Amino acid sequence: MTTVRRDTYTPETLLTVAVQVFNERGYDGTSMEHLSKAAGISKSSIYHHVAGKEELLRRAVSRALDGLFAVLEEPGAVRGRAVERVEYVTRRTVEVLLAELPYVTLLLRVRGNTRTERWALERRREFDHQVADLLKAAAADGDLRADVDIRLATRLLFGMVNSLVEWYRPHPGADHAQLADAVVHMAFEGLRTSR
Amino acid sequence: MTTVRRDTYTPETLLTVAVQVFNERGYDGTSMEHLSKAAGISKSSIYHHVAGKEELLRRAVSRALDGLFAVLEEPGAVRGRAVERVEYVTRRTVEVLLAELPYVTLLLRVRGNTRTERWALERRREFDHQVADLLKAAAADGDLRADVDIRLATRLLFGMVNSLVEWYRPHPGADHAQLADAVVHMAFEGLRTSR
Repeated sequence: MTTVRRDTYTPETLLTVAVQVFNERGYDGTSMEHLSKAAGISKSSIYHHVAGKEELLRRAVSRALDGLFAVLEEPGAVRGRAVERVEYVTRRTVEVLLAELPYVTLLLRVRGNTRTERWALERRREFDHQVADLLKAAAADGDLRADVDIRLATRLLFGMVNSLVEWYRPHPGADHAQLADAVVHMAFEGLRTSR
Repeated sequence: MTTVRRDTYTPETLLTVAVQVFNERGYDGTSMEHLSKAAGISKSSIYHHVAGKEELLRRAVSRALDGLFAVLEEPGAVRGRAVERVEYVTRRTVEVLLAELPYVTLLLRVRGNTRTERWALERRREFDHQVADLLKAAAADGDLRADVDIRLATRLLFGMVNSLVEWYRPHPGADHAQLADAVVHMAFEGLRTSR
């Protein structure tokens, strides 16, 4: 039985297990022993696939970051009025967050104690800056309310979007596009009826 | 020197230190030893003031919860149109969060492993429900957009508000009322210029 499981292990399935354990115990609180137990394979089998837990963290947060940065290259993010582009990026950010939930959850919980964590924080900040730049451009076009503080709006927007990892529970038939639309509407149109 | 510090210790100053340590190490990760070191007083001196760390947690989250629930009793929260009341509660919630930052931060990080934590989670849910009820009443008045899902809007609203504990850093001359206004405007009017 053990042999079968070991044979079928791939870096991909090991990553799935590692991300789950990191999210449950925290990255700092996870040892190779914990990973070995959760995966049901020996520590030496894990070392066959990766150099250590920091490599697993790097792969996991890379998956989240690659998904997020890919959004910025999509046609909806690079063509059209800035306000439409930033709405598009917000919508797609929510969709990536939901599609890659455990990976983005881990990314958002990274603390900065190791080199990999500091790199992940730096990349997150870079993503936030690119969204802030789009908001700035939208404000310059006169498409945002004049009283909007861009820096603050960026933080509140991500506060709203990132809160999904705290309360969203995946379920069959969940409509990610609908949820993403609700976030975009609330952030850009507000909850109130127009007056 | 030790005698002086011990003499000047009050349950209030002990609470300030305890909340700081809980926020840094996590409640689960904090021992009476950690509290004793941080406070610079012996464990037995701490036991002179409180029965243990769970009592310190209860006092700390009570302070946050009392602040939040008091908002719901204020005139602005009980009189007028529901939409004005929910905007008022949102604004004041942000102000309480900023005024009691370490206490609300601790409240929002509570996990549910002990009786006190489960009680705190229950009270938080109760607060959220009361805000959701106000949003429901505002929707019934026709003051919220027809496509707003109240449950989701409540979560996104608190996602936005509560994110403040993650990124807000107190500084001299900070204008809490202005920040609270920005949150209310974004949530209820949206970022876009009216069309």
